[in-house]
Amino acid sequence: MKKYNVAVVGAMGAVGKEMLKTLERRSFPINELILLDVSSNVGKEIIFNGKTLEVQEAKAGAFKDVDIALFSAGEDASRELAPVAVSEGCKVIDNSSTWRMDDKVPLVVPEVNPEALRSNKGIIANPNCTTVQMVVALKPIHDLYTIKRVIVSTYQAVSGSGQKAIEELENQASEYTKGVDITNSVYPHQILFNAIPHIDTFLENGYSKEEMKMINETHKILDPSIKVSSTAVRVAVFRGHSESINIETEKPINIFEVKDVLSKSKGIVLIDNPEQKIYPMAIDCKDKFDVFVGRLRVDKSVENGLNMWVVSDNLLKGAALNAVQIAEKMIEMDLV
Amino acid sequence: MKKYNVAVVGAMGAVGKEMLKTLERRSFPINELILLDVSSNVGKEIIFNGKTLEVQEAKAGAFKDVDIALFSAGEDASRELAPVAVSEGCKVIDNSSTWRMDDKVPLVVPEVNPEALRSNKGIIANPNCTTVQMVVALKPIHDLYTIKRVIVSTYQAVSGSGQKAIEELENQASEYTKGVDITNSVYPHQILFNAIPHIDTFLENGYSKEEMKMINETHKILDPSIKVSSTAVRVAVFRGHSESINIETEKPINIFEVKDVLSKSKGIVLIDNPEQKIYPMAIDCKDKFDVFVGRLRVDKSVENGLNMWVVSDNLLKGAALNAVQIAEKMIEMDLV
Repeated sequence: MKKYNVAVVGAMGAVGKEMLKTLERRSFPINELILLDVSSNVGKEIIFNGKTLEVQEAKAGAFKDVDIALFSAGEDASRELAPVAVSEGCKVIDNSSTWRMDDKVPLVVPEVNPEALRSNKGIIANPNCTTVQMVVALKPIHDLYTIKRVIVSTYQAVSGSGQKAIEELENQASEYTKGVDITNSVYPHQILFNAIPHIDTFLENGYSKEEMKMINETHKILDPSIKVSSTAVRVAVFRGHSESINIETEKPINIFEVKDVLSKSKGIVLIDNPEQKIYPMAIDCKDKFDVFVGRLRVDKSVENGLNMWVVSDNLLKGAALNAVQIAEKMIEMDLV
Repeated sequence: MKKYNVAVVGAMGAVGKEMLKTLERRSFPINELILLDVSSNVGKEIIFNGKTLEVQEAKAGAFKDVDIALFSAGEDASRELAPVAVSEGCKVIDNSSTWRMDDKVPLVVPEVNPEALRSNKGIIANPNCTTVQMVVALKPIHDLYTIKRVIVSTYQAVSGSGQKAIEELENQASEYTKGVDITNSVYPHQILFNAIPHIDTFLENGYSKEEMKMINETHKILDPSIKVSSTAVRVAVFRGHSESINIETEKPINIFEVKDVLSKSKGIVLIDNPEQKIYPMAIDCKDKFDVFVGRLRVDKSVENGLNMWVVSDNLLKGAALNAVQIAEKMIEMDLV
């Protein structure tokens, strides 16, 4: 089996670390692993597959011997370095939002639109966390009944904002328990014991960028004819995004068929026995590769309607795992 | 000004305590206040308007001199004692779900359907917390544009499950900070750092009773022709329910008109300047009487669509306050 030189750019970040763990867990065919990050992290050490590796600087020249570079170092790094990496001969799978809506860049969820990978010109974009888990759950339903409209409200974990946000929620819990004033700096308001309807910055139309990502990326990945409305909310959860999704379809829905098809779909685990208190929950999804779907029920407020609850580890299927799966699919399709 | 003998049934409960505070804060015209509760709470003392009062047993005979009884002692107490109280000559405003869907019992939010009070036969039902704040926000929009369909996802506080649930979340935060195992008994799963799509018990159609309450009560209070779909979710918040509400109307929506009308509506405070990080949040609504509405924006996924975010103190407008306001409205309408 062929092995590849793989670079992880942003190796010390929350998603970068998950990328490394995911490469290990999936026994990715690695010849050499190169850890790259900003200069302040250069020299730090990470153990990968039992070997200690040193972080090097992410800069021009660093990608000369690299076959696949997984980027998760923020928008600036992706904008500047991804084209450099491509020019040095490697494929870039980019977790930032920088290239996602670029017409020349495929935006891919391997379970949904793997064929889009064929048109790549070096950069492949990894979708936003909230979009990935939603389109994985929507795809089998769209194939069955043709989805017309989706209305989604999210319950998003703080780890989506990175390591500092995780620490902020930890600190706030500790401050609360000690009875001292609760402090915040990552989020504009206390997130502990709160729900903040604000993720990323706001646009003139009143939507947040996060909300527009769910709309635009669903169009690009799944189907531009699906109407999408989105409300993105941060909650006091460390890991695992939850989504309340309402679907309207062209064709009549058979709820048993939906459950059957979802339970057989790759990447999906159906967890749907509410009377036994069994449904997907954020606290259960940590370190899991799957998208968990439950609370499936017919919505009678419209001719062909369906409600569901979709949960997944935002750092894995929502980020690191999907990026690694894109790399695996490209190898399988002989595109690396 | 005429004064009334008022009984609070379930005086020691989470909502009962808020009823007492609300009667005080609103200078309700009280002649005598009678505190009633289960026998285990008899003899306990509560200070009201500077006077110490003793809890008496809620039982037949206790309502003989009472004009208005505010019930919040659970479904069993309401089922058994509300008709007894009426037969002893008092008006019952009941916070439980027992009588809400009874054809002979008005279900009232004073800002929305005060006229329904006229048909009362002694018992008036106070709606479910999630319904109250939603219909207050929907009413002015329905009057303007005729609402066809509502899709709501909730982010509900633990105080909706009573004092023990508040303590459970407190304990879990403390256990987490100490690094010991997290225990639960009120909820079937850990609520700290989680989102649980399960409130009340589940029905055969896959919906929870809480979700069906929002559908059925909205029909009874506001308009039976509005189609409603609901997903009810518990989050790690002490106080304040948040709701992500998607609305479809008959007539075209003018977003400026919506904001203008909502800002002038009784019981509503418009908090909608997301670019300045200003929107309704659970942590800001404690002890407030208002329903807070924000994140108003046109939803282009349907011909006439609107999204909004609605937050209110579930123990006040969602329970105690609305009950007291019903009593006030009945006095104003000469129905006591």
